Amino acid sequence: MKRVMLVVAYEGTEYMGWQVQPGRVTVEHVLNQALSGLLGEEIRVIGASRTDSGVHSLGNVAVFDTNARMPADKISYALNQRLPEDIVVQQSREVAGDFHPRKCKSTKTYEYRILNRRFPMPTFRRDTYFYYRPLDVAAMQEAASYLVGRHDFKSFCSIHTQARDTVREIYDCQVIADEGAVPEGRLVTIRVQGSGFLYHMVRIIAGTLIQVGLGEVEPARLKDILEARDREAAGPTAPACGLTMMGIAFEEKS
Amino acid sequence: MKRVMLVVAYEGTEYMGWQVQPGRVTVEHVLNQALSGLLGEEIRVIGASRTDSGVHSLGNVAVFDTNARMPADKISYALNQRLPEDIVVQQSREVAGDFHPRKCKSTKTYEYRILNRRFPMPTFRRDTYFYYRPLDVAAMQEAASYLVGRHDFKSFCSIHTQARDTVREIYDCQVIADEGAVPEGRLVTIRVQGSGFLYHMVRIIAGTLIQVGLGEVEPARLKDILEARDREAAGPTAPACGLTMMGIAFEEKS
Repeated sequence: MKRVMLVVAYEGTEYMGWQVQPGRVTVEHVLNQALSGLLGEEIRVIGASRTDSGVHSLGNVAVFDTNARMPADKISYALNQRLPEDIVVQQSREVAGDFHPRKCKSTKTYEYRILNRRFPMPTFRRDTYFYYRPLDVAAMQEAASYLVGRHDFKSFCSIHTQARDTVREIYDCQVIADEGAVPEGRLVTIRVQGSGFLYHMVRIIAGTLIQVGLGEVEPARLKDILEARDREAAGPTAPACGLTMMGIAFEEKS
Repeated sequence: MKRVMLVVAYEGTEYMGWQVQPGRVTVEHVLNQALSGLLGEEIRVIGASRTDSGVHSLGNVAVFDTNARMPADKISYALNQRLPEDIVVQQSREVAGDFHPRKCKSTKTYEYRILNRRFPMPTFRRDTYFYYRPLDVAAMQEAASYLVGRHDFKSFCSIHTQARDTVREIYDCQVIADEGAVPEGRLVTIRVQGSGFLYHMVRIIAGTLIQVGLGEVEPARLKDILEARDREAAGPTAPACGLTMMGIAFEEKS
């Protein structure tokens, strides 16, 4: 028996998120099916980030246990032959038998991308949120700085969460404007790194920073929104299509 | 009667290219249908760049004549309501009655994007060409410099061309590596600007520069390939999915 770690990239458009749900096509379900077929035993992966319906990933992480003799580092190549083109395993390797991707300390990076211009751009439509009203990126960046640190993020958490402890630490939060990505407009990226995120947290951060970018909320108000510990205090949940899980760095030896 | 110019963006994946062909779904056909429905008369657009099947655009240009009273600058908004989400008109405005987008002097910009890493990345698969062997970008850049200027590009033109004169001018050709676009790998962009391009010209340039990036062709060989005036001397035609028509700047007053 060995434990194998996978780094998994996917375009989330066609999936009802990561986590297995009866009667739904999810990334976890497709991985379980492909791995079980490949290895000839029933495989159930444990995912690090249970991304929502429509959210994308460049490097989510999953582990599973297997008795198969196939070397761990060869599994990625064989598995990709059995996966649809919108899910691609980037790496497979053996890890310690007690390595658990949700219990191990890690830094997760997410990006929320906003195409900010007058008209949508077809080649961007699947993995950016189109928003036509001009955004003040400097104000968004100031607001983002108040989120950095260890805070109770209850205001930035869906009321449908199962988490009791809503304290999390954000290590960095940058708002970057790329003026060269498209003609007459720009791509605004909210890049956030932290130890872990609550249900809908990055999308609520994005929705709140968009309100700041529109001048509807003063940047310094972010401090009050955090203190309120009330979902109603923050902005709306920005659409899933703009969100991408960029990758996870584990602190402990895996 | 007035002549209206459209700037048109599209993801080419689902289309058999720009130009109307019997029994095929093309961008030109979809535009003609939507415009005819909107304006209540039969409209036929004239396109600037007749992009191939699977090629994308951020800013192709088309013109058409209409007797409709709708102001030219309002047509974009109304037309987008009738277009599928993979075709979006970016601008509409009235131009001189004799303005012809293929006869007027212009600078066209194309980008050919290569995802150069070990595994494909799902969110990049529609508008980049995935190539796993590492490319020497400095060698590609040197090779690209030999293409700049006024040359006979017969070696870089499909044998199925209808063009008799194969002399064209390339104003600039840059090969740019973006190391931050993806983890463990990079996005290599060939950006080429010129007065006009022959059939398959940018894709043959890309296929040849990839051979240079692999070390199979010396950069200085590009001079010999140009002089040969023979399609067999150049590299293969790189796949359509990597190519995007970025935009067109007209020199004459439109």
